[in-house]
Amino acid sequence: MTICFELHPRLQQDCIAVGRFELCRLLMMDDCHYPWFILVPEIPDLRECYQLTEPQRGLLGEESSYLAENLARLYHADKMNIAAIGNLVQQLHIHHIVRYQTDNAWPAPVWGFVAATPYTGQQISEQLILLRNGLKHCRFD
Amino acid sequence: MTICFELHPRLQQDCIAVGRFELCRLLMMDDCHYPWFILVPEIPDLRECYQLTEPQRGLLGEESSYLAENLARLYHADKMNIAAIGNLVQQLHIHHIVRYQTDNAWPAPVWGFVAATPYTGQQISEQLILLRNGLKHCRFD
Repeated sequence: MTICFELHPRLQQDCIAVGRFELCRLLMMDDCHYPWFILVPEIPDLRECYQLTEPQRGLLGEESSYLAENLARLYHADKMNIAAIGNLVQQLHIHHIVRYQTDNAWPAPVWGFVAATPYTGQQISEQLILLRNGLKHCRFD
Repeated sequence: MTICFELHPRLQQDCIAVGRFELCRLLMMDDCHYPWFILVPEIPDLRECYQLTEPQRGLLGEESSYLAENLARLYHADKMNIAAIGNLVQQLHIHHIVRYQTDNAWPAPVWGFVAATPYTGQQISEQLILLRNGLKHCRFD
């Protein structure tokens, strides 16, 4: 039993820290193929959504819905893909991926399609400005 | 604008009707590779979770959580995979897939891994008995 929440090392390695909602940490996958964001509830030893309490699940649902709606608007998504997989990284994390009919995996899900290509520093700055202006309910790091 | 909810023809074709929760219809994918279930909110013209009202989202979250927890228990899952993709079938539907470290796609997500193999009639009957006994909050067809 871990007492304190610590972000899984793999998420730390593959993602850029963006900010925090009430329950979840917001990360951006360092892969310029897709606008790809991840919510991680800041609760230790969590693997499945059903291990949350009902109020926590409500909060997660609202943060996920707020994030998905605003990502769709900011990035002009054709479709949002939302998923909790976690077969490799056991810490509960929920993918929110902006999909376009023109992206290189469409219409397949993105996993395993192409290797990640990291953003440039300039691209990261641009994304963070967009998110800062567009996600008013998020506290930014 | 559709007035009445109608199940998407592709879901009708690929799945077996199981039952109903308060908000969602419960389907089983006709693929014996994985215990694979789908929740479909019975609301017309719905594509993204954020188009639901907040109470509907709460209900969907609780039905999803109940289903995932009980599938994990009934099928002795190593991991539950939960996802709303919908790039091809636009009607909002949420996959709940029981995963095992020994299944043929592990640790990858299941989509596009192997073509579906339909259950036999006998296997379908066995699944429905298991679900009827294990999902007390579901109304069975």
